[in-house]
Amino acid sequence: MKPSIPKGTRDFGPIEMARRNYIFSTIRSVFALYGYSQIETPAMENLSTLMGKYGEEGDKLLFKILNSGDFMKSVDPAMLENPDSLRITSKISEKGLRYDLTVPFARFVVQHRNELQMPFKRFQIQPVWRADRPQKGRYREFYQCDADVVGSDSLINEIELIQLVDEVFRRLRINIAIKLNNRKVLSGIAELIGAPEKLTDITVAIDKIDKIGIEKVNDELRERGLSEEAVSRIQPILEISGSTDERLSRLEEVLSGSEIGQLGIKELREVIDGVTSLGLNAVLELDVSLARGLNYYTGTIIEVKALDVAIGSITGGGRYDNLTGVFGMPGLSGVGISFGADRIYDVLNALDLYPAEAAFSTQVMFVNFGDAEAMASMKMLKEMRLAGIKGEIFPDKAKMKKQMGRADALGIPFVAIIGESEMAEGKLTLKNMATGEQSLLTPAEAVEAIKACVKQ
Amino acid sequence: MKPSIPKGTRDFGPIEMARRNYIFSTIRSVFALYGYSQIETPAMENLSTLMGKYGEEGDKLLFKILNSGDFMKSVDPAMLENPDSLRITSKISEKGLRYDLTVPFARFVVQHRNELQMPFKRFQIQPVWRADRPQKGRYREFYQCDADVVGSDSLINEIELIQLVDEVFRRLRINIAIKLNNRKVLSGIAELIGAPEKLTDITVAIDKIDKIGIEKVNDELRERGLSEEAVSRIQPILEISGSTDERLSRLEEVLSGSEIGQLGIKELREVIDGVTSLGLNAVLELDVSLARGLNYYTGTIIEVKALDVAIGSITGGGRYDNLTGVFGMPGLSGVGISFGADRIYDVLNALDLYPAEAAFSTQVMFVNFGDAEAMASMKMLKEMRLAGIKGEIFPDKAKMKKQMGRADALGIPFVAIIGESEMAEGKLTLKNMATGEQSLLTPAEAVEAIKACVKQ
Repeated sequence: MKPSIPKGTRDFGPIEMARRNYIFSTIRSVFALYGYSQIETPAMENLSTLMGKYGEEGDKLLFKILNSGDFMKSVDPAMLENPDSLRITSKISEKGLRYDLTVPFARFVVQHRNELQMPFKRFQIQPVWRADRPQKGRYREFYQCDADVVGSDSLINEIELIQLVDEVFRRLRINIAIKLNNRKVLSGIAELIGAPEKLTDITVAIDKIDKIGIEKVNDELRERGLSEEAVSRIQPILEISGSTDERLSRLEEVLSGSEIGQLGIKELREVIDGVTSLGLNAVLELDVSLARGLNYYTGTIIEVKALDVAIGSITGGGRYDNLTGVFGMPGLSGVGISFGADRIYDVLNALDLYPAEAAFSTQVMFVNFGDAEAMASMKMLKEMRLAGIKGEIFPDKAKMKKQMGRADALGIPFVAIIGESEMAEGKLTLKNMATGEQSLLTPAEAVEAIKACVKQ
Repeated sequence: MKPSIPKGTRDFGPIEMARRNYIFSTIRSVFALYGYSQIETPAMENLSTLMGKYGEEGDKLLFKILNSGDFMKSVDPAMLENPDSLRITSKISEKGLRYDLTVPFARFVVQHRNELQMPFKRFQIQPVWRADRPQKGRYREFYQCDADVVGSDSLINEIELIQLVDEVFRRLRINIAIKLNNRKVLSGIAELIGAPEKLTDITVAIDKIDKIGIEKVNDELRERGLSEEAVSRIQPILEISGSTDERLSRLEEVLSGSEIGQLGIKELREVIDGVTSLGLNAVLELDVSLARGLNYYTGTIIEVKALDVAIGSITGGGRYDNLTGVFGMPGLSGVGISFGADRIYDVLNALDLYPAEAAFSTQVMFVNFGDAEAMASMKMLKEMRLAGIKGEIFPDKAKMKKQMGRADALGIPFVAIIGESEMAEGKLTLKNMATGEQSLLTPAEAVEAIKACVKQ
């Protein structure tokens, strides 16, 4: 009888919302500070837009919307003799829920190409849906917060994005390391060992080095068909040590035979020099094993790790050269970053880093002693709200204990009491719930008292 | 080849988003000022939660999600011999997209009843989806902005909500009339004419009086089975005129035989007196023909009309006595209001009432003359961003005309120019795009100049 919600989805109550809004509004403010403007796309996209963009596995994880009306009439009766769900899906469903913000963004850019000013800098904060098996920290509905700039090859975009990431986490007070790599270095490595066609296998395997260690990565490289010689040539690269400068120089030597590898190192140097010279709050780490799984990236790769909590990457991104090619608009380069709101939420919870503003926001509750007192209270409350105070009045003439209990339970810091004597004087008794202190004040004085307390 | 989005859905670009955010953030601020706190519920609800809550027509307008995996295996082969889409739906779909925010809110209250502090005041701003035929002003995906308080019978809640509505439109600078009625008065009328079972027919018909006029309403009442005598008894009520006080007194006489009608008048008086004594920006109108179609309401009914634009109601709400009964939690009374964001957007567009803040937000663009200049620019930009200025740097060394063209097209009010002489001095040339005026300034001075200009 008790109603429930679909597995893998969540309700967010007032406290969770206040905390999530704090994260989103921090990210949103920094996006705006860096000149990104917001767009929104529909929750539903045509399946023709979504299918084939996330691999075969991704196609299965799309939530598909049943066509309206008599959808069965589009299914050939012959198809029903031996019903195949996959084939029937294409007959009874035309739309799906968005799986990420990247494909809808690419679709948006192509559809609105004539209205956009290039380079186009957009951010987007919206939920996405995936029919994944739910587990701890993995949901079927979750928010993504993406910023991308398309239509410019300049590495200034990378430098700006890294600064943006640094500023977001500085404001959230989360200590981070920003890991950096370049896909062209990975291509250089594949070229060096004479297996450029194995680039995907190599990156997928070495991406796991942090999780499974160098030995298991080697096993996986062998399983993926690399020769013993090739595996051994990868080793020194994965083990290069020293300062960032030393490692870049060493890498430059090792990859001296690869043009694309050299280009990757040049790009890394330029980004690192730029960011370093501008100054960074975060630790910046060159990580040659960083690949972020996706084949999608063609240049800079960025990943953010929280330093004080053991959790996967909390933000990631990189440069891609062909975002919109699949929609018939080739050659558009871009670079983007995606903040993992749910993991950032977990980190803030683990470290208890929420500021006072990320809590229930009502500042004062007026107690209700009866009709006349309530009317006098509402008049004062109106005046205080006009001065920016967030307040409410207990709507019913309940027992004092019950009314105070509400303020207590909700963490409302002040209670305003208006009885006969207060009414006669046009004043209110303001009670500070933390200290118990009470003062008889005019509404204007109460506004000042509440504002002064918030500032502390 | 050119990609598109499902009909009835929309993309929102930067300008539209800035305008929509202005509307949402205005509403959100006022909700908070009145002590409402935000919740969010999942886009997908179980169909068992949604079905049967919006009538037979509503069930058809729900977007249903196809079950994942081999969904056809749950369909009895016998069912496929003569496939009936409606019956098959229940086998292949368990979830649907939310149709409004009210049913998910009711589900939320019941599911989390033990965690909630009553009265529970929540607001919710999220999209909803309806498989309606798209037409001008009617979309398949649109936002609702709802505030409700449940767990209190007090009319103080109505008075507070009307003030809240008044404050939202005062801030948006839209002149409005707030129309008021009470469902109990409508019940009294049905009782008076001896046809209490015809209440729904009567309210549906007289709800249309503004659109089709009194004669056509009479025709509809006859069609709905009311006797000529009953129809004639309704007339004087619909035609009552005079001041609000006069009309209430006249109504009181006419409904003197109906207990529920008297109660409705008493409630109307109390709400009107309270609101009037607190003072209202809007015009307050008693409208006995106001029914808002929904059977759902049991007391106060509220509707808002824009005075300067011909458009349907832009906000509406009322009191209901049994929101959660259908989920097994009877007797919970509440009152709520729903802002029509899309219509408010249309009104603001028609009257061009957007403030400067509801536009592209970037305040300054740094021109890019080359690597050294760009690095110097980024250092100054960093300093200015720390002081709160929203800015960007043109990422490529493009022609001056192209760079200035971007600032112009995006409406960025200031351009910062850093050439050799500026670099040598550690200054920038700030150009005001509106006046053409240029000044050589330090970054700190530029911050002041930009902030001073925004204030004007």
